Amino acid sequence: MAKFNPAVTEQPAYKITALQDKAKALRDQGVDIINATIGDPKDDTPAEVQQALVHALTSKSYSQYPSYIGSEELRMSIANWASATHGIQLDPSHQIMACNGTKEAIYSFPMLFDWTKGQTILIPSLSYPVYQMSATAMQIPTLNLPLTESSGFLPNLDAIEPSILKNAQLFWMNSPHNPTTAIASKSYLEELVGLAEKYDFLVCSDECYNDLYASNQPASILEIDSEHWVCFRSLSKRSHMTGYRSGAIVSKNNALMGHLKKMRSPMGVGTPSFIQAAATWSWADKAHVKTHRDHYNQKRQKIKTAILSAGLDMFGGDAGFYMWVKSSRHSSSESLSQWFLDRGILVTPGTVFGPDGDPYIRMVFCLTDDVLDDCCQKIAH
Amino acid sequence: MAKFNPAVTEQPAYKITALQDKAKALRDQGVDIINATIGDPKDDTPAEVQQALVHALTSKSYSQYPSYIGSEELRMSIANWASATHGIQLDPSHQIMACNGTKEAIYSFPMLFDWTKGQTILIPSLSYPVYQMSATAMQIPTLNLPLTESSGFLPNLDAIEPSILKNAQLFWMNSPHNPTTAIASKSYLEELVGLAEKYDFLVCSDECYNDLYASNQPASILEIDSEHWVCFRSLSKRSHMTGYRSGAIVSKNNALMGHLKKMRSPMGVGTPSFIQAAATWSWADKAHVKTHRDHYNQKRQKIKTAILSAGLDMFGGDAGFYMWVKSSRHSSSESLSQWFLDRGILVTPGTVFGPDGDPYIRMVFCLTDDVLDDCCQKIAH
Repeated sequence: MAKFNPAVTEQPAYKITALQDKAKALRDQGVDIINATIGDPKDDTPAEVQQALVHALTSKSYSQYPSYIGSEELRMSIANWASATHGIQLDPSHQIMACNGTKEAIYSFPMLFDWTKGQTILIPSLSYPVYQMSATAMQIPTLNLPLTESSGFLPNLDAIEPSILKNAQLFWMNSPHNPTTAIASKSYLEELVGLAEKYDFLVCSDECYNDLYASNQPASILEIDSEHWVCFRSLSKRSHMTGYRSGAIVSKNNALMGHLKKMRSPMGVGTPSFIQAAATWSWADKAHVKTHRDHYNQKRQKIKTAILSAGLDMFGGDAGFYMWVKSSRHSSSESLSQWFLDRGILVTPGTVFGPDGDPYIRMVFCLTDDVLDDCCQKIAH
Repeated sequence: MAKFNPAVTEQPAYKITALQDKAKALRDQGVDIINATIGDPKDDTPAEVQQALVHALTSKSYSQYPSYIGSEELRMSIANWASATHGIQLDPSHQIMACNGTKEAIYSFPMLFDWTKGQTILIPSLSYPVYQMSATAMQIPTLNLPLTESSGFLPNLDAIEPSILKNAQLFWMNSPHNPTTAIASKSYLEELVGLAEKYDFLVCSDECYNDLYASNQPASILEIDSEHWVCFRSLSKRSHMTGYRSGAIVSKNNALMGHLKKMRSPMGVGTPSFIQAAATWSWADKAHVKTHRDHYNQKRQKIKTAILSAGLDMFGGDAGFYMWVKSSRHSSSESLSQWFLDRGILVTPGTVFGPDGDPYIRMVFCLTDDVLDDCCQKIAH
């Protein structure tokens, strides 16, 4: 038989499996378990999103291959959103591409580069697992940048050796950060882009939580004028559209975007046109995002109160819909996860996100209000 | 700047571009051009497909991440279709996976294997360009198997050196064939699978045109009991669902499918659940496929008559919705394409599909009846 790629077949399974198994066993015994592990909003998608999709679908009796870079209307809508929200003027023909959610765009992105000289990808030591899984499958060497409480869960840029920066081609940045919700300031991002220009690497800025903030919108790489970044934005969290698979790839580096277009052309990543129509509405509308923000702010207050009253510690900025939690009574992610499970709540051990995950857990609060209230009671008592 | 992957950036542009430019120039002059280059049905998608999608979408007010392997209902529907149509019993838990159309599944598939020892992919010398573009981007060596009129536009299996078969890991098979519409018999497929078992390679059988035949259903690899094939099936042509992006990956090799599941898990290739619901309907329904078949048979008769009356030659089986044409009056694809363009019809030069494409052209007839009638008149006169 053809030989399998060991980089794919020998990847360790997700560490969360054991806990999911425990949760399943409890459920089978009739115990009610709240799943607080998946960043998948349980509240409504705006009705206009469904309406726009249905309208686009039913206005044609036949089907056609979608544009793999996104329709002109969709790219214009993204350009207008970027201008209104981040003050950046983008050319929708050359600097914006649609994608089937940022997961697919992030996964395949490193294939655009030449790795034959041992160049590396820099990845924070706690991260969305797809950065590492993609690099592993493509056999691209990676280096972990340690995240710690003392550095506010952001990579300490001053501590990275120049030789490491020189040999890097991509630097995955994610603010607001999954799993810690840390927020990089504008000056932090400016320093990072400065390093990218000096050492000639590319900042890959995954900003899928940027729209969900408490008071001030977190800084975006879009606000920094440079050809040394590419930005991934998503409708999944902002517009509660996880099930639609729609996002955007943005860069002011026209050469990069031209090559990326060429790479993605045969990949079969065109988003169905009726979904593109729904996405066109979502980027253009601000009101629903404010509603979501306000709603998450209420939820965030509730869960914070519960966590504090249980004597737990939490970290990170007021953005996104995660809590990054530790406890002086638990020396490991595993043991703290078990504490939550004993109360009927399944959370994600921090170790799932990388080597610096102990003794933390990540808990999502993108739950319905009823479930969240139940969850808070279980934590507090 | 990070160094781009030359295997991506230096791929030649599609050769069709020059002719598309000519067509655009003619259109700009007010000349009406029929585009007969893209295999994208112009007739209606079954109304039930839209209805199933709208029902699934609007029955929930919120969105959720879709299953990346396909819902149980969808995989059951595919299993039932395979049993009813090809007499194969499949375990929907381990032997069937949904995909976002077969293009994405085909493109990424070679990543599942280890290519470090110089192993190759065998590709017919006229093929759907994605087989080669994917291998090129991943820097996997390929070998072309010549297709000629005398071998009926199928690779001559007896002529392939054992050393080539020994060093191959994947063999792309496509019957009914794009672009020539050649059909492999069951004994041909049996011989091919026999070689795969003997020399330990995997047959990758792309069967997206299998449902559109004139009288007898073409043989499918699904009918051959072996662990040495993987089959890609699509709703794009069968159900006129190009715009929905939905297909199936099938294999009786459970180890292969397990590894593929692991590979695809972080790739972001989950198909939106409302599309999966539409697909579940499509696999279960036979009637609409017969309607499409009958309709294409009428169209095929019309275009054949026109081609013959123009003194052109055509090849291939009675399946799919392409015509593979040459003319004793034209010594190159380019010149024959120009003959069609002079009559207001844009066709694809055979050379777009590989090195053995001269002096042929491919013409699609998945056009509406009105446009096809117009097209036939233009050819015949």
